[in-house]
Formats: sequence, structure tokens, C-alpha cells
Amino acid sequence: MSTTILEAPAALRRPARVRTVRVALAGCGVVGGELARRLREDEAVLAARHGLRFQVVRVLVRDTARPRVVELPEGVVTSDLAHFLAAGADVVVEAIGGVEPALEIARASLAAGRRFVTANKALLALHGPELARLARRGRGRLDFEAAVGGGIPVLRALRDQLAGAEVRRVRGILNGTSNFILTRMGEGAPYAGALAEAQRLGYAEADPARDVDGRDAADKVRVLAWLAFGADPAALPVRTRGLLPLPDRLAADARALGGVARLVAEASLEGRGVSAAVEPVIVAADSELGAVRGPDNLVRVESRWNGTVRLGGPGAGGEPTASALLGDLVRGASPLRPPPGAAPAGVAEAAEHAWVVSAPTGHGAEKLLLLTLDRAGVEANRVVWAPDAARAVVPAATWRRVELALRALEGAGLGPLATRLEIEG
Amino acid sequence: MSTTILEAPAALRRPARVRTVRVALAGCGVVGGELARRLREDEAVLAARHGLRFQVVRVLVRDTARPRVVELPEGVVTSDLAHFLAAGADVVVEAIGGVEPALEIARASLAAGRRFVTANKALLALHGPELARLARRGRGRLDFEAAVGGGIPVLRALRDQLAGAEVRRVRGILNGTSNFILTRMGEGAPYAGALAEAQRLGYAEADPARDVDGRDAADKVRVLAWLAFGADPAALPVRTRGLLPLPDRLAADARALGGVARLVAEASLEGRGVSAAVEPVIVAADSELGAVRGPDNLVRVESRWNGTVRLGGPGAGGEPTASALLGDLVRGASPLRPPPGAAPAGVAEAAEHAWVVSAPTGHGAEKLLLLTLDRAGVEANRVVWAPDAARAVVPAATWRRVELALRALEGAGLGPLATRLEIEG
Repeated sequence: MSTTILEAPAALRRPARVRTVRVALAGCGVVGGELARRLREDEAVLAARHGLRFQVVRVLVRDTARPRVVELPEGVVTSDLAHFLAAGADVVVEAIGGVEPALEIARASLAAGRRFVTANKALLALHGPELARLARRGRGRLDFEAAVGGGIPVLRALRDQLAGAEVRRVRGILNGTSNFILTRMGEGAPYAGALAEAQRLGYAEADPARDVDGRDAADKVRVLAWLAFGADPAALPVRTRGLLPLPDRLAADARALGGVARLVAEASLEGRGVSAAVEPVIVAADSELGAVRGPDNLVRVESRWNGTVRLGGPGAGGEPTASALLGDLVRGASPLRPPPGAAPAGVAEAAEHAWVVSAPTGHGAEKLLLLTLDRAGVEANRVVWAPDAARAVVPAATWRRVELALRALEGAGLGPLATRLEIEG
Repeated sequence: MSTTILEAPAALRRPARVRTVRVALAGCGVVGGELARRLREDEAVLAARHGLRFQVVRVLVRDTARPRVVELPEGVVTSDLAHFLAAGADVVVEAIGGVEPALEIARASLAAGRRFVTANKALLALHGPELARLARRGRGRLDFEAAVGGGIPVLRALRDQLAGAEVRRVRGILNGTSNFILTRMGEGAPYAGALAEAQRLGYAEADPARDVDGRDAADKVRVLAWLAFGADPAALPVRTRGLLPLPDRLAADARALGGVARLVAEASLEGRGVSAAVEPVIVAADSELGAVRGPDNLVRVESRWNGTVRLGGPGAGGEPTASALLGDLVRGASPLRPPPGAAPAGVAEAAEHAWVVSAPTGHGAEKLLLLTLDRAGVEANRVVWAPDAARAVVPAATWRRVELALRALEGAGLGPLATRLEIEG
């Protein structure tokens, strides 16, 4: 064997460092299908950034004849649970929802020492601690960031960052479907119309019962209480009321009181017990909760040592949920990220912004300010005069050009200051 | 050996499952001292919830004679770096700041295969990728959640949840000290007074230069760009301007334009390069950035697949930063959390809330509503009449009492709805 080492071009070298992870995927609907599509379409990005290639080796579906959003190789799709479980994957992703067969898949995967990644809040609300124990015993791994808060990293925050913070209260909007409906109702839409719109946009399923009656949010608050307080989620009573049975009255009551309705989920530590509820609350439209609009979610975590942390973002939809599943896949497989990957270079900003350029008044400074800006090619559309300073409002200029103008203004002895402006000036 | 197994009471069994983690702590100031205090005072909580006991075996300080906020056992405190490094700890926590001797401690710890936990953004901005490589090679572990965003779990989100989301832009307020100063200046305080107040409250150090001139935020934005885009943080140019040299003019300019100033840090992916800046921006007081007040931080992460995620919370102060360090300590030592711990029971909510109770108008329903509420012991202080429904505002009642009133109203044939009220009714 020769000892001469020839450096291959970077593009050729990279694949050698890519590790293949065999994925078995249960469910190929809105979330599962989106994940399968991402694993294929982003193959190059995942290899470059994380040194990982995810190979979908088996997909469990109810009906193999149904068309899918993603093309899958022949022999991968099966409706046979035993055949699915025998795939010998490194990681099993569950995106079918409901308790069975999700529970059977979880138990079999974790008992075999595999990684199990799920988006299934109902499964965790009932069996989370059992599955965590199975993972510990079998040296498997259980991850479920996608189960609560869609694209918001709230579970990871509770498991990690806030682990030693002594959380006292978790509160927020956990159901994107009902928040979309309440947002549209706050704008005047009747319940039936808002629900139909949510279904048309993919924010509500054909059967929205668990979303609008509060059960979905109750499952999520159980999972939060488990991670935040160590409470047994299945044993935790959650006082649950949703938008039903009188959604239009709820919206009318909110309007009559000058506010908007939001479905608020909450769990707090009271002495040695945990109190939990999901219920509609009327809040001001410009309040923290009222400002959460459409399918977004928001979670506030109050702790003894870490103050109040707010986490907000997309709470419903296939893309954020698939994104959270993918995050769990990447993290579990690559604990020492970020790898160097292809480091992008730093580049100068080329965008134009609005600016205010000010200079102290006196000795004709006002005219000199405008004249010098004009000569430097920075166009002001308005000047605000005041006893202390003259202020020229520049609607659009790059920093590079503003910097040149500042030098010219300094050269003219003006003592200028330029600041970006993000309000209508 | 006997095979009889006697179950000991839970209180006696628990300590047997507690694992001791030996911690060497570099720095015992605002952050390090707070962490040492927490590790001692919360020993029982950490053992019960995480099965871990953190034993501080050595503490590196500059001056061993200086009094500390926490009492440490004799022989633990040292000013000798070699003696500190020889402690043989499981994990080394660095909370001294600055590049040396932090870098030497990091290299020695990671090369020896130890876990290294740090709050040092300057160290990571200059040497992050090198330390990550050292951790990978030496089978050590590098964690630094406390380095950016204080108590906000933004780094963990970028490393994990958003790992596959294709982040395009990270933007926010990353320096609590300057945000406190700008908040007070927005209320009319002059720069000198606001700075003095920040120092008095512990939000600004004796030398606040790196906070107010933008360098601290620039270090943080380098770390964010590293995790978000894989950019080399040390090579990334960050266009940096802070509150200086004209802080009072900045505040006056903001006031003249009807807004408030915020120090905004930003990194975005432009083609194959990263553009990064820290600079003051004038925003509306009720905008997302304007609403960040005092020492709080806020980070917005925009991604292709995960939409826009917002993370907000305390950005400065010893407690949140120590909390983030403790989170890293707990996570690193206990990857399969949450353990069952002592599960608190579910309890009914006993708190009083404000409510609106509505019933459709007609057939004397208005009077019946008030009468029935009164008989059920639920006191309304106001009634809003409208053609569709009568609405009684109840300023303070428990859910238990409201539920009883609802049953009585239903019994009277009224079709009532009770909803919590969090606005002035």
C-alpha cells in the first residue's frame, strides 16, 4: 500500500465523512410525508452541515394504495406492523398520532434499544414516564420536541436549560388550530366560517374535535407539567374547557368586554401539588396573549432562578412539526455539533435601510447638513428641526453610503450621528 | 449472601441513586459565586429531581483573601492555575470571562476529555470552533448556553431544534446592560444617570465599555452566526456601533422621531455569505423590539422550515446566567432525564379570578341571571346589557364557585357561559 496521500477536492472528500442513519417512519400524512420529503430534498444540506444521511428504510401506512406527497422507493411502504418493526432501523419516527399502534411501536423500539422520536402528545400524556423508563433501561433514547409547541423549542428548554431553574408556572397558547379560529372570530368571522377556513388552510383536521374542545391542549399541558414539575402526566387532573359548546357566544362576550378570547393552558406548582387547566380567557387584543395570532403558539415559563422566559412561534402545520422531528433526528445522531461544515464567508450588508442623520443646530448647520448629505448622494425626504439638533430622515440608503456621508459631515465640522429607523418617521 | 430484598422507605432509598459529579469552578464573582451558592443550597432539589449531587472540589480566584458570597470548604479555593487544573474534576465550569486564562483552562480540560461548561462569549467568538474540535477529538464535551441570551435557551434551540430548519436570519437584543440603559433613557433619564443606576442594580459592571460600545453584543452575534450558519465566528466581520459616542443625542433623535432606541444585533445569510451587524435602531415603543424593557433580551430566529421563532427573557444578572450554567451541568450529566423523582400530585385550583357570566336576553333572563348568581354566592359588580345577551362581570371567584353558579343557572333554564377575564372589564 502506498503511503502517498493525495488530497481529493473538497466536493469529493465530503461524502466520506457522512454517516448513514436508517430511519423507519410510522405515518406518512401531513407531518410524516413532509419529513420524508425533507429528508430526501435536503440530503445535501444535512450531509454538509451535520455529516448525516437519513435513509428511510421502511414507512408504515394504513393504506399502501393511497397517493403520497413524497415518492418512496419500491418495497419501503408497508401496512404490516410486524414487517415495519422488523426493519432494524437506527431510529423509529412515529407520526401517526393516537395511542395505538403508536404505543406498541414505541415499546418495541425502545425495548430493542433503538431511538424513538415522536410528535404524539396523547401518547406521552398517557405513557410518557413508562417510555422514558423503557429508554433508560434498554439504552434507547426517547425524543419528542415536536409533541408540544410545534416549531417552538419549549420541551428542550424545560428538559435542559430550565432543568435547575425551579419552574413555578407554565402558561400559554398551545393549540394552533383553535388560536387560528379565535383570531378570525376576533375579526368578526362566525365559528363555522372560521373553522372551515382553518380546514381549507390545513390548520385544522377533518375532525377538529380534540383541538376545539381543549383535549389537545390538555394533553400538551400534561407533558409540560411532567417535564416542568415531574408530575405524572396521566394522573394529573386538567380542568378542561374549550371553545365549545358556545363558540359564537364566547366571541360575542369577548367583544362586549372590549377584548378577544384565547384558549389558555396553564400548569403551576401549588405547595406540593400541581394545578392545571385549559380554558378560554378574555384578554386585551394588544396583550401578550392577545398578540398571539393565527396558528402561532406562545409559552411563558416562570421560574425561581431564571425569571420569566417567553417562547413563541408557529404552533400548527406540517412544516414546523416536521422541522422539530428533524431537529430531534439530527441532535440524537450528532451530539457534538456543530461540525465545521462549509463555513460561509462574512459579507458586507448590501441592503438599504431608513436612517435619521442628526447634527447640532446653529451656525447654519441645518443647511450644511442637507447640502452635505445631498452631495454624498444620500437623499433626505424630510427634516425635523428642534432647538437641540436638526434631523434629516433618509428613507433608503445602504450603510456604506451613509458612512461616506458621515465622513463628509465630520469633515464639515458638524458632529453628526446616523441611526437606523424602523418606524414611520 | 441473602437473596431476600427488603424494600426500604422511599426517603431512605433515594440517596442511593444520587450520583456525585465533581465540579471545578473557575471564577467566583457575580455568576460563579451564584452558581456555587445554588449548587449548595439546592442540593436536595437537584438530588430528588435529577439524581445528581454537584461537589465543588476546587475554585479558582484571583485573590484568595477576598470575601465571597458563598462559604467554601477549606482548601478548595486557590489562585494557582496549575493546582486548579490538577483537580481531576468531572466537569470544569468557567465563569471568569476574558480570553486568558479561560482559553488555557478550556484547552486543558477538553484535551483531558473533561466536560467544559462556560458563559464566556468572547472566548467562543474567538476560539469556539477550535474548542468544539478539541471536545470531539478528546471525547470531552463543550456546553455554553449561558454565553448568549442569559436565561433564554437560544443556543440550545439553534444547536438542536432548529438544526434542520435552515435558519436565514437571527435578530434581536443581546445585551441586557445597554437595553436597561436605553429603557431608562427612553423614560427621560440622561445617559450618565441611567448608567449609574444600572451599575447600582448590578446590571452593569464597573467597566461597562464592552456593553455600551456594542462589542459584547458583537461577540454574541458571532456565536449565533457560528451555530446558525456554520460561519467561522472569529473571521466574521460584524459592523459594530453602540450607544457611544453620543448616547444622549441618540435618545433625543429617537424621541424626536416618536420612538425609542434599541441596540439591535443581527446576522443573516446572504447568498453564500453571512452579513452581521450590531447597531442602534429607532423603533416604535410598542413594537416587538421596543417592548423589550430593562435587562431583558429577545431573539427572533427566522428559518425556511420553522417560520419565525421568538425567544425572550432575562438577559443580564447573576441568577439567570448561573441558571443557564446549571442547566448545562444537569443536562451533560443526566442525558435521560426526566427521572421519575418525587411526582407531585394534581391539586384543584384554589385561586380567585375575574369572570364574565353571560346568558341570552329575554323573558326576564337578566334579573334571573343576577338573582341566581347572588344566591350561588358569586358576586357581580357590573352587568353589560346587549340585545343578544346579558353579561355579569364577577371580579373575584374560584372556578369551583362559578361552576356551582353555572349549574344553578342551567337549572333555571338560562343557557349560561362563564369565561375568565383578564382585562379591566
